[in-house]
Amino acid sequence: MKQETLEATGSFSRAVAKVRFKEAQIEMAHGAGGKASRRLIEGLFVPLLCGSGAEFLGDAAHLQINGSRIAFTTDSFVVKPLSFPGGSIGELAVNGTVNDLAVSGARPEAIVTTFVLEAGLPTEVLEAEVRAMAGAAQRAGIVIAGGDTKVVEHGKADQMYITTAGIGEPLSGVKIDPRTLRPGDKVLLSGPIGDHGITILLARGELDLAGDLRSDTRSVFPFVEALVQAAGPGIHWMRDPTRGGVATALNELARDSRLGVAIHEESVPVHDTVRGACELLGLDPLHIANEGQFLAVVSEEQAEAGLDALRRVPGGEEACVIGEIREQPAGAVLSVTSYGASRIIDMLVGDPLPRIC
Amino acid sequence: MKQETLEATGSFSRAVAKVRFKEAQIEMAHGAGGKASRRLIEGLFVPLLCGSGAEFLGDAAHLQINGSRIAFTTDSFVVKPLSFPGGSIGELAVNGTVNDLAVSGARPEAIVTTFVLEAGLPTEVLEAEVRAMAGAAQRAGIVIAGGDTKVVEHGKADQMYITTAGIGEPLSGVKIDPRTLRPGDKVLLSGPIGDHGITILLARGELDLAGDLRSDTRSVFPFVEALVQAAGPGIHWMRDPTRGGVATALNELARDSRLGVAIHEESVPVHDTVRGACELLGLDPLHIANEGQFLAVVSEEQAEAGLDALRRVPGGEEACVIGEIREQPAGAVLSVTSYGASRIIDMLVGDPLPRIC
Repeated sequence: MKQETLEATGSFSRAVAKVRFKEAQIEMAHGAGGKASRRLIEGLFVPLLCGSGAEFLGDAAHLQINGSRIAFTTDSFVVKPLSFPGGSIGELAVNGTVNDLAVSGARPEAIVTTFVLEAGLPTEVLEAEVRAMAGAAQRAGIVIAGGDTKVVEHGKADQMYITTAGIGEPLSGVKIDPRTLRPGDKVLLSGPIGDHGITILLARGELDLAGDLRSDTRSVFPFVEALVQAAGPGIHWMRDPTRGGVATALNELARDSRLGVAIHEESVPVHDTVRGACELLGLDPLHIANEGQFLAVVSEEQAEAGLDALRRVPGGEEACVIGEIREQPAGAVLSVTSYGASRIIDMLVGDPLPRIC
Repeated sequence: MKQETLEATGSFSRAVAKVRFKEAQIEMAHGAGGKASRRLIEGLFVPLLCGSGAEFLGDAAHLQINGSRIAFTTDSFVVKPLSFPGGSIGELAVNGTVNDLAVSGARPEAIVTTFVLEAGLPTEVLEAEVRAMAGAAQRAGIVIAGGDTKVVEHGKADQMYITTAGIGEPLSGVKIDPRTLRPGDKVLLSGPIGDHGITILLARGELDLAGDLRSDTRSVFPFVEALVQAAGPGIHWMRDPTRGGVATALNELARDSRLGVAIHEESVPVHDTVRGACELLGLDPLHIANEGQFLAVVSEEQAEAGLDALRRVPGGEEACVIGEIREQPAGAVLSVTSYGASRIIDMLVGDPLPRIC
């Protein structure tokens, strides 16, 4: 492979690679997926590794290997607790990497996985997670092609950390590039937001709130595939809004496209439990992590066909248009309401819900 | 990709996939690369993930993606301390994955990486490791194509754990398969063994022994490439003997080939410091980890050409033939001396030197 054949997809922008990371030490917020994460990535990882075309901002790199294009990505998982309503770390570890491949415009094909295990971990806990991974892989239609295990002393690693890396086959006819955005493009969302983050919070018992909430962890590839079939060349951008939530994903898009993103907040589906928890905590559902939702920007002409396609995917019945691309405010996300009020929605700042994936 | 196109390389044997892991909890030895690791892999990971053709025993899986064959592997790194004479966790993380690709018979092309960071980690420590990775990647001729960062609370993760996954292009004309071994084949080794493991031990200050020893961490792909050019179809097996050392690698080979491996222990190069440390600790240098040595089994006819090729690689000047394949003792490794004595050399049992990679 020659280096010039490496093409980073998604929101990575070489223009920002000269920023210098000035903080003296690493804090929890640097892993939260918001502004601090971005400073670390753009100020340290990208400048030092960028000669090699690093793609550290959430999607997959697309490379040319052995004459074929291939999508390649990785993620680590440190969620606490290990299991929660609707899923567990094993499912997250499979679906998270599958989804990074999917939203880069690739069909997920295979993953490899490593476990860092804490000495003293009950075998049944490990076995449950390995089974969860096998099930998630089967549902996502991928193979688990290999792995590695390390063990660290009791007291380290919170039972287990899992890392997965995945490869996939780029879909033909899909070109994901924020620079192709045009004013008038529509922002599509697959369903209710914030379920995953608030489920984790409730599973920790940190909030005295009952609610029938489950993590949304799943493969979003069915959404990608349906949208590509229905609106192929009309697709300008895709993302699974995980850490940092929908607000952070759209802020990155606004910044990279140098256009504005207007969100009709009333049209964003949010379950009552999520809304209630956010009100109690002073959080915005738009900042809460999802592990099975899908965001896309599609040309105005193709948006209706795309939306219909998403709604026909099982689990996509609540898909909706939540906003559109505008000339202004360039580089920012604006929330507008039906009675005319508006506010700027920033990226996630700090880490209100640490270790949710 | 269809599942039947997935082909596991190296020593993985489906025949063992029915063993059941019976231990109640995970111990340090399960991460040491010896017998306990093998029980965990064969008794838990393989049976649960094996429908997907898992390759958990050290090399890379070779898959068919988008019409091309691709090698794919992953490893986590939890070494203590983070840096040591001759290298650091960042270099290990690059070279370890590069070497798994190389000994599977592939040209390493690209890696992705994740960091699990401990809150409070000084930025300069992280920066040093990212620079080490960039340098190792450049020396190995690969690109770092992307990554992910998670942060865990202070007290977890021993400053940092690094995981890498790599992809590579299978070399044509190389077929690595223990079943192709024949009595008379020669066992080639690239140089002195045990330097890495003992360097880590000394760096921890756990042993009152001075010595000018350095980790051997490096890419072994130059050895692979030279051997393939010199002895292509004569190559029957390759391995980088990391955790568990040369003895464990050769025991796996003996088991998988159902042939015997005879080692002339006097011909195995070992630095004095390594030998001294092993004598003090009651360890066998054959069980000590290496991070830049290369083992191969080559047909009798091609062995001399292969050895000459290895010796011409910079850093391979001490390459030598350390033994040969025999009919007996089938499935075991035998050490023989010039004065006629012999002993069976087992795989590593337990974990005498935890967290050396």
